[in-house]
Amino acid sequence: MRLLVLGGGQLALMMSWAAARLPLDFVVYDPDPRAPAYKYAIKASDPLREVERADYVTFEFENVEWEVAEYAHKLGKLRPHLDYLRVKKSRIWEREALGELGVPTPRWAVARDGAEAMELAAKWGRAIAKVPSGGYDGKGQYLLPRERPPAEGPLLVEEYVNIAREFSIIAARSEDGDVYFYPPAQNYYVQGILVWNYAPAEAPPEAYRYVEKILEWRRYVGILAVEFFEDRSGRILVNEIAPRVHNTGHWTLETDASQFENHVRAAVGLPLRRPRALAPTAMVNLLGVASPPIRELERLGKVYWYGKAEARPRRKMGHVNITADTTAEAIAKAREAMRIIYGRKFPELVLKNYGSRQ
Amino acid sequence: MRLLVLGGGQLALMMSWAAARLPLDFVVYDPDPRAPAYKYAIKASDPLREVERADYVTFEFENVEWEVAEYAHKLGKLRPHLDYLRVKKSRIWEREALGELGVPTPRWAVARDGAEAMELAAKWGRAIAKVPSGGYDGKGQYLLPRERPPAEGPLLVEEYVNIAREFSIIAARSEDGDVYFYPPAQNYYVQGILVWNYAPAEAPPEAYRYVEKILEWRRYVGILAVEFFEDRSGRILVNEIAPRVHNTGHWTLETDASQFENHVRAAVGLPLRRPRALAPTAMVNLLGVASPPIRELERLGKVYWYGKAEARPRRKMGHVNITADTTAEAIAKAREAMRIIYGRKFPELVLKNYGSRQ
Ligand SMILES: Nc1ncnc2c1ncn2[C@@H]1O[C@H](COP(=O)(O)OP(=O)(O)OP(=O)(O)O)[C@@H](O)[C@H]1O
Ligand SMILES: Nc1ncnc2c1ncn2[C@@H]1O[C@H](COP(=O)(O)OP(=O)(O)OP(=O)(O)O)[C@@H](O)[C@H]1O
Ligand SMILES: [Mg+2]
Ligand SMILES: [Mg+2]
Repeated sequence: MRLLVLGGGQLALMMSWAAARLPLDFVVYDPDPRAPAYKYAIKASDPLREVERADYVTFEFENVEWEVAEYAHKLGKLRPHLDYLRVKKSRIWEREALGELGVPTPRWAVARDGAEAMELAAKWGRAIAKVPSGGYDGKGQYLLPRERPPAEGPLLVEEYVNIAREFSIIAARSEDGDVYFYPPAQNYYVQGILVWNYAPAEAPPEAYRYVEKILEWRRYVGILAVEFFEDRSGRILVNEIAPRVHNTGHWTLETDASQFENHVRAAVGLPLRRPRALAPTAMVNLLGVASPPIRELERLGKVYWYGKAEARPRRKMGHVNITADTTAEAIAKAREAMRIIYGRKFPELVLKNYGSRQ
Repeated sequence: MRLLVLGGGQLALMMSWAAARLPLDFVVYDPDPRAPAYKYAIKASDPLREVERADYVTFEFENVEWEVAEYAHKLGKLRPHLDYLRVKKSRIWEREALGELGVPTPRWAVARDGAEAMELAAKWGRAIAKVPSGGYDGKGQYLLPRERPPAEGPLLVEEYVNIAREFSIIAARSEDGDVYFYPPAQNYYVQGILVWNYAPAEAPPEAYRYVEKILEWRRYVGILAVEFFEDRSGRILVNEIAPRVHNTGHWTLETDASQFENHVRAAVGLPLRRPRALAPTAMVNLLGVASPPIRELERLGKVYWYGKAEARPRRKMGHVNITADTTAEAIAKAREAMRIIYGRKFPELVLKNYGSRQ
């Protein structure tokens, strides 16, 4: 059995850990020869050839080379369906697709250019302009009217939501239509980047219905993440979807059936596995950290280090998972972990690098 | 941080899985260039050089090159203490050491040669002769008087114990003396080779005391396995010790703190981790199986496949771990797994190879 993963970042790396025990050739393609996932994977050099050799093809990020994904789709090997990747090529297409499915999102419009975006913002009071493609971790987003959007359009312009809280649902769906929802996670962002989260958190029933609609749209296979806003008036809005394993699901590594395990399982046609015991778990990202204070952190939880070649500001270098008897305890320990990692400098953490504190 | 493991079999492989998430250079030395553990490890070519480069050195089997282990010991890097390896160089020394610690074992004597072994057997009724070194998985053992022992001695001759059941205790001890016992496992052997086991099983209080004595003898660091016999008159006897991770502890992979994790932790001076939730778990070895019936087995549990270059009779190619709500259910599923793996041919399973049943 041969599985090809397009993209070789930490998400593919963690998939490779889940796949290690299986009689499976785990192949990764990434244009960057220093991609973290190459550490435990077979290195693909010619992606189209590899699509032909593989039995199954999946991806760990949305900006994969389109022809490669399309070829895998044509050969019937791509999981999930190509259309999920297609809508993620543009934030505008994504919003259109969600709209057609009847899934509520923040109010949005398309601006032809930066000037039109500013006009919309003036009308709405506050707005966010987002470049349709290439943005991640809050990059390519402009808070209007304060920040200056790029002159060239098109741009997705959306209302600035008065967020009460953010949560996400990680769902798994197998080839034969079996669906499993991990408990929702509550997520904390600083400047558009996820800093920490915890699970289980609350999600209203309609949130699950929205996820189901997205899953059934093109008979999803694998792990799907859906990011939600709950605003101060109680509206439940989908912010975006991620047709892949997701940072807000890293806490599932503390179960006996993580998102990585279930994504690999679904991709190669194995039945889903439901976690047996779910302890309250918090996750803290190691952002821009050159070398983790491992001995201190391992007293609190488990450090997952991605082994990236170089630490850069805001870069996700690893994370810490902390399980506890209660959610309150997991959160308290996550705070302690953040103090250990970032010291007093929190929340400026996302702006610069921190060296070893060991 | 750099950890060198002497030996590159499946035990080192599973250590590498546990170490993968840590900021750790995981180095393996094995004279066999096709050793399974090389898949996810840095390959050491010059072991003495590697001992110098490493911060910590441990081993995954007892027959390591002595000078290498001794050198690591001299540099203060070896965990556990060299003396545990020393006594395992000879079954006779091992029995002597256990005797000095007051740990009961089957009645034994040393025979100068095969003829003397036969004389002892004649006196005792039934006996087992064991070559002092080089035996494993039941190899190098002779049931007297039926089987013919090697002419050359010395041989360890011991009473043939009327075994009611076999169990083992896997213990972890850290540098600072913290000790953790995993729940005992009950083990089922066919012709000297472990076929399956389950945990938790029963162990009387004295069994733990014996393990403690062995741990404290030279301030053990890492995972220690102790194999016990309970005979039909209720005697608790230590059969042998294994100063390393052990096949009867593979079921701990289903906890959030496996024997492999705790061995690596102890070896590099991290505190022990105690498993949070322990579900009843059964383990079935995949012996001599060329290709595992993965889809059938993954419905019952988790397959761990070692990726060995070649299947040979009796060879440990992988194992299946099965968790359940009750021990009875885990055992029932283990039986089903054995039917799937070995069909009607059980227990001849240890004698010949089975191809793929997929
Ligand atoms: N319309 C909005 N109103 C208020 N806050 C927003 C809005 N859109 C985005 N944000 C904030 O920015 C964060 C990141 O936004 P978004 O998910 O669109 O970015 P991203 O670049 O795709 O990040 P990632 O892919 O890492 O999730 C959100 O989680 C939220 O905190
Ligand atoms: N004295 C004995 N009386 C009865 N059975 C015995 C005796 N010694 C060994 N056996 C049987 O043989 C099995 C293997 O013995 P032992 O542990 O000494 O072998 P080994 O080659 O070291 O195997 P491994 O290292 O895989 O445990 C035991 O688990 C037990 O079932
Ligand atoms: Mg997002
Ligand atoms: Mg034994």
